[in-house]
Amino acid sequence: MDSANFVACHQFGFLERYGVLDLACPGATFLLNSPYGPDEIWDRLPRSVQEALISKKMRFYIVDGYSVAKEAGMGRRINTIMQTCFFALSGVLPTDEAIEAIKQAIKKTYGKRGEVVVQQNYAAVDATLAHLHEVPVPEEASSDFDRPSLVPKAAPEFVQSVTARIIEGKGNELPVSALPIDGTYPTATTQWEKRNISTELPVWDSEICIQCGKCTFVCPHAVIRQKIFDKELLKDAPSTFKSAPARYKEYKDKLFALQIAPEDCTGCTLCVEVCPVKNKRQPKFKAINMEPQAPLRTQERENWDFFLTLPEVDRTAISLNQVKYNQLLRPLFEFSGACAGCGETPYLKLLSQLFGDRALIANATGCSSIYGGNLPTTPWAQDSHGRGPAWSNSLFEDNAEFGFGMRVALDQRLEAATQKLRDLAEPIGPKLTQAILFADQLTEADLQAQRGRVAELKTRLQELLDGDETDIEPLKSELANLLSMADVLVKKSVWIVGGDGWAYDIGYGGLDHVLASGRNVNVLVLDTEVYSNTGGQMSKATPRGAVAKFAAAGKPLPKKDLGLLAISYGNIYVARIAFGSSDAQTIKAFLEAESYDGPSLILAYSHCIAHGYDLKFGLDQQKAAVTSGYWPLYRYNPDRVEQGLNPFQLDSKAAKIKLEDYIYREGRYHMLTQSHPDRAAKLLELAQSDVETRWATYAQLAGLKTNGKGKA
Amino acid sequence: MDSANFVACHQFGFLERYGVLDLACPGATFLLNSPYGPDEIWDRLPRSVQEALISKKMRFYIVDGYSVAKEAGMGRRINTIMQTCFFALSGVLPTDEAIEAIKQAIKKTYGKRGEVVVQQNYAAVDATLAHLHEVPVPEEASSDFDRPSLVPKAAPEFVQSVTARIIEGKGNELPVSALPIDGTYPTATTQWEKRNISTELPVWDSEICIQCGKCTFVCPHAVIRQKIFDKELLKDAPSTFKSAPARYKEYKDKLFALQIAPEDCTGCTLCVEVCPVKNKRQPKFKAINMEPQAPLRTQERENWDFFLTLPEVDRTAISLNQVKYNQLLRPLFEFSGACAGCGETPYLKLLSQLFGDRALIANATGCSSIYGGNLPTTPWAQDSHGRGPAWSNSLFEDNAEFGFGMRVALDQRLEAATQKLRDLAEPIGPKLTQAILFADQLTEADLQAQRGRVAELKTRLQELLDGDETDIEPLKSELANLLSMADVLVKKSVWIVGGDGWAYDIGYGGLDHVLASGRNVNVLVLDTEVYSNTGGQMSKATPRGAVAKFAAAGKPLPKKDLGLLAISYGNIYVARIAFGSSDAQTIKAFLEAESYDGPSLILAYSHCIAHGYDLKFGLDQQKAAVTSGYWPLYRYNPDRVEQGLNPFQLDSKAAKIKLEDYIYREGRYHMLTQSHPDRAAKLLELAQSDVETRWATYAQLAGLKTNGKGKA
Repeated sequence: MDSANFVACHQFGFLERYGVLDLACPGATFLLNSPYGPDEIWDRLPRSVQEALISKKMRFYIVDGYSVAKEAGMGRRINTIMQTCFFALSGVLPTDEAIEAIKQAIKKTYGKRGEVVVQQNYAAVDATLAHLHEVPVPEEASSDFDRPSLVPKAAPEFVQSVTARIIEGKGNELPVSALPIDGTYPTATTQWEKRNISTELPVWDSEICIQCGKCTFVCPHAVIRQKIFDKELLKDAPSTFKSAPARYKEYKDKLFALQIAPEDCTGCTLCVEVCPVKNKRQPKFKAINMEPQAPLRTQERENWDFFLTLPEVDRTAISLNQVKYNQLLRPLFEFSGACAGCGETPYLKLLSQLFGDRALIANATGCSSIYGGNLPTTPWAQDSHGRGPAWSNSLFEDNAEFGFGMRVALDQRLEAATQKLRDLAEPIGPKLTQAILFADQLTEADLQAQRGRVAELKTRLQELLDGDETDIEPLKSELANLLSMADVLVKKSVWIVGGDGWAYDIGYGGLDHVLASGRNVNVLVLDTEVYSNTGGQMSKATPRGAVAKFAAAGKPLPKKDLGLLAISYGNIYVARIAFGSSDAQTIKAFLEAESYDGPSLILAYSHCIAHGYDLKFGLDQQKAAVTSGYWPLYRYNPDRVEQGLNPFQLDSKAAKIKLEDYIYREGRYHMLTQSHPDRAAKLLELAQSDVETRWATYAQLAGLKTNGKGKA
Repeated sequence: MDSANFVACHQFGFLERYGVLDLACPGATFLLNSPYGPDEIWDRLPRSVQEALISKKMRFYIVDGYSVAKEAGMGRRINTIMQTCFFALSGVLPTDEAIEAIKQAIKKTYGKRGEVVVQQNYAAVDATLAHLHEVPVPEEASSDFDRPSLVPKAAPEFVQSVTARIIEGKGNELPVSALPIDGTYPTATTQWEKRNISTELPVWDSEICIQCGKCTFVCPHAVIRQKIFDKELLKDAPSTFKSAPARYKEYKDKLFALQIAPEDCTGCTLCVEVCPVKNKRQPKFKAINMEPQAPLRTQERENWDFFLTLPEVDRTAISLNQVKYNQLLRPLFEFSGACAGCGETPYLKLLSQLFGDRALIANATGCSSIYGGNLPTTPWAQDSHGRGPAWSNSLFEDNAEFGFGMRVALDQRLEAATQKLRDLAEPIGPKLTQAILFADQLTEADLQAQRGRVAELKTRLQELLDGDETDIEPLKSELANLLSMADVLVKKSVWIVGGDGWAYDIGYGGLDHVLASGRNVNVLVLDTEVYSNTGGQMSKATPRGAVAKFAAAGKPLPKKDLGLLAISYGNIYVARIAFGSSDAQTIKAFLEAESYDGPSLILAYSHCIAHGYDLKFGLDQQKAAVTSGYWPLYRYNPDRVEQGLNPFQLDSKAAKIKLEDYIYREGRYHMLTQSHPDRAAKLLELAQSDVETRWATYAQLAGLKTNGKGKA
């Protein structure tokens, strides 16, 4: 069926979102559930709907279904009403016969619920035809508005012509030739998909804000941004744009702005939760507070657009290891489709801020692969130079190997480029060649300098290729080859990302092998302690006593200690972090892991809707996980051995609260106390003992004295 | 080509092993390289060869190729000679022309090696025709011997008709219908494949032997057996059969015999190496000594056959945990195709002695899967009741899962049988039912009692099925169902076996998952520290500094500590053993692992030809691995926690020798000191440090005080 001679639209709002009449055939009937009467409806129709009615010479009927339902005492149930209209208009049965059949069906369907319901439905049927109006279709379309385009006109051509069509649900109408031939999709496309899913959004109180960066840091969707800028730039700002004198010792004369992307916020409120500032006059308020979105949408959209025009911070000028500073960095992971309040995405956003402009990311199947590459859009983005993560998703069972392959390929290409550079040093110029070959690439300044040298190299190579010196001629194929791979001379950062289902279970064999390889890869495990994306199945990361699929009576065995397994190799950087407990330790771990010239493993506590509580408490639960001793924070850095230091550093203190005070705030644990109270008590006891044993192990690694009771 | 008109046999011995003339067509020519002259050759031919020559009316030629070669100064090189005969007889070229062409070819081929070689070959060609004799073929076959059958007449029908054909190299002549329809092959078939590969065999000195069982224990091919028996049984013994008064306090009036299977011994000499007895009169000799096989073969074959008729020991009457006793148990793993002196097979033999009569074995790909199921024969055997391991091989990447499946299937079937037994208690008889349901199955006596009860149950079920009581009639399908699975009511023992390539690398993801499952499976890792069967590639079990494929310059990273990884779960029985260092600890570990009602992991040091030394020193190297601290022996038994004991028991002492005194006796380490001396020194230093760190970790687990230098 490619066309319809009867089209009904039961929700008026759909007219602005879908091509409702696209498949109507000439002369078709259109039935619309409309809050507007026959006199005013025409002007309320988008122009394209008017045009379709005219050009297809359609008959147009309206009924105010919700009014009829309300009057008949049926609340918002319009099914009987719309059904009656259908039979009255479609002609599949004579109208009287159809009405009779509908009433018999009502009797049969609702008889059990009592005579009142039956009579209500009868009344609705009878009232319907009185409210059903044919609307004469004028000769010309008159509307000055139409269904808005799904993406703004500013979006790139591909987004307009391909991405938007897929968002619209018309991907199957695209020709194969419209899609990227090698499957490589443009990044930074979530910015064009304004979802407006939150009814509230955070509003910044510029006066009392201390500019600590914590709200920006925790925001799972990267909708909170901050910038420092020169005062004179304010002259072009919209009138409602807020800023404040920068509270940074380096930027005393500049302004600071915190801006929310109003249409991308999911309303999770983590920013408000984390804000350390109290409004002294109104103790309920902080330096950032939730307010209704609708009245602010237009103004904040303008403010956001202006904010984007402000210059980005100079990466080489700031200290990366403080939230206050590194949150000035543009995130290259933004507006993902992750749940509101997601406990995973702040880690990815941080990764993207610190290393995104030179990162290659292998992403295991799981939540992060879904929100990371939720076609047609992707949250992985690009900076103003067009640099951003190269990202790809592989399977649950081979993602470590996939990332390892990226590393090996990179190393091979680097080796080849280095060799060519040596071979061609004479024509290129020995000074530039040496500078590139022996460059330090440790700091942002180093990297920027190397990028400059590589740009110079590329220019020089192009000159040589364009020139016609006879002694260069035989070298041209080699020169062109080097030009094609010169970018590899700037250090890259390889990340292998996935959840616990991948890292602890399905991909563990490969992960272990890759970690044992000694190669320089960085592994980030977003540990939600359960298969989140596939529906909450138990993994080996699931803690003792938690309820999950396949562990309905609470998991009987303790959580696998993946960190300890990795530490036992001795040459792997290992960190256990929880951003809600310590942003400083989280950032240190990322920086150390990336700079360690060998395999690194970061185990990141990630609160999750699967844990069964309102995620506005996600940060509190992260803290409780640490203060109960359940999730000790640590870093194991093999580089410290050469300095004569203990490679193991315990970054959190011994338990201050009982395990039950942490876990019973979460549904996954608490539900067991309802369903199996005795078993819950037994598992709690064992789990508390697990915590103490684990703490003792770590304290021993750290060289602390313990009394064996989980207290150091 | 299904037939040949020219057949040459260049090795006289092949006449007794292959059907050399099977494909000769009528009237064909047969050329034989024969040490016997034309007058005596006929009587030296097996009858079937004579018959073929006669019935096919063949022409028969002989040449004493080795004599011609020797006279021409060509040692044992007979290729030119046999080639000359071929051209002289085959008629593919006129003889003179052929001889000329051969000489030209000699000039071309050997000219570079000098005129002497060319002249030698010319001389051989010229002499050949003088030594080539046609032998007239008589009218009748006269030989009273023939090519012996490959397997003895006593072998089962399947072995005669299928196994033997495959051994003979004629498997492709078997119809598909001859093969087992479900791929299940009969076990205990290596006993029929007498390989006679050793020129020497151990000879027992019954007078000085202390009957400790150690030679039997270490024998990799289970060719040494020992039995205790009543004196009167000796009356039927062959005259050369040896025995001695039993030196067992329980068997004072009985005799002890130690017997070698002469045709199955591979001559590895580990029995001699392990023998603790010195012959005081001849200090070079022990209580077991190597002597030439040929003169002893016939007599010892008879002695072996007699020995097999002696009764097996009563399993319920002996203590399983001492070598002296448990080596009286019949091995159910015998005469495998493993290398002479293999360091893996003694573990499998022990497993088969202790649990073989109720074992299910999942075997990963690797050496153990090859010698364990080296079709057409298998070393896994059966006792006199027909009980023996059910064995199957799975892939490198899923063997833990494969064995886990055996466990799950067994548990499901046990549950079903138990339920049916409960449901049918009335007709079966409540007393028997209860006895079966609540039976202890811990000791050999328990198991024997349960087997008796199950036999009684099966009899009872058959009676009920055969009877015609009307109230039983409706139950018959359930009774038959229970009968079909009654054997599952006797406790089984599930083993998951493989090498380090499987356990540390390719199958590790699954192994980890199965270990973490908490299910009662026993995992035996035969750790040769390298992919032995596939050609010596590095695995994660390969130690730092050892040379392997893909680690030609010595492995730079330390060995993965699989035991520690398993211990970190807390609920897994883990043992690290080395049979050459401590038989008692090895046996303890097997018994504890099997009786632990949860997952068990045994890491078994397995010396290997890939280690690069004469395996007669295998036991010495096992000792050195332990005394250097490289391979600490331990057992981690979670059951001890409930008794308030430390689950971790360290079974070996701190290092007494330096690591280099252990490793440099092995080619895999020593070769690096030749190829990369500086690197070898550096890696030795790191490896010594690994040893000390590991020891410190284990000493800490064991609760010992250490000075951090590998000394407890």
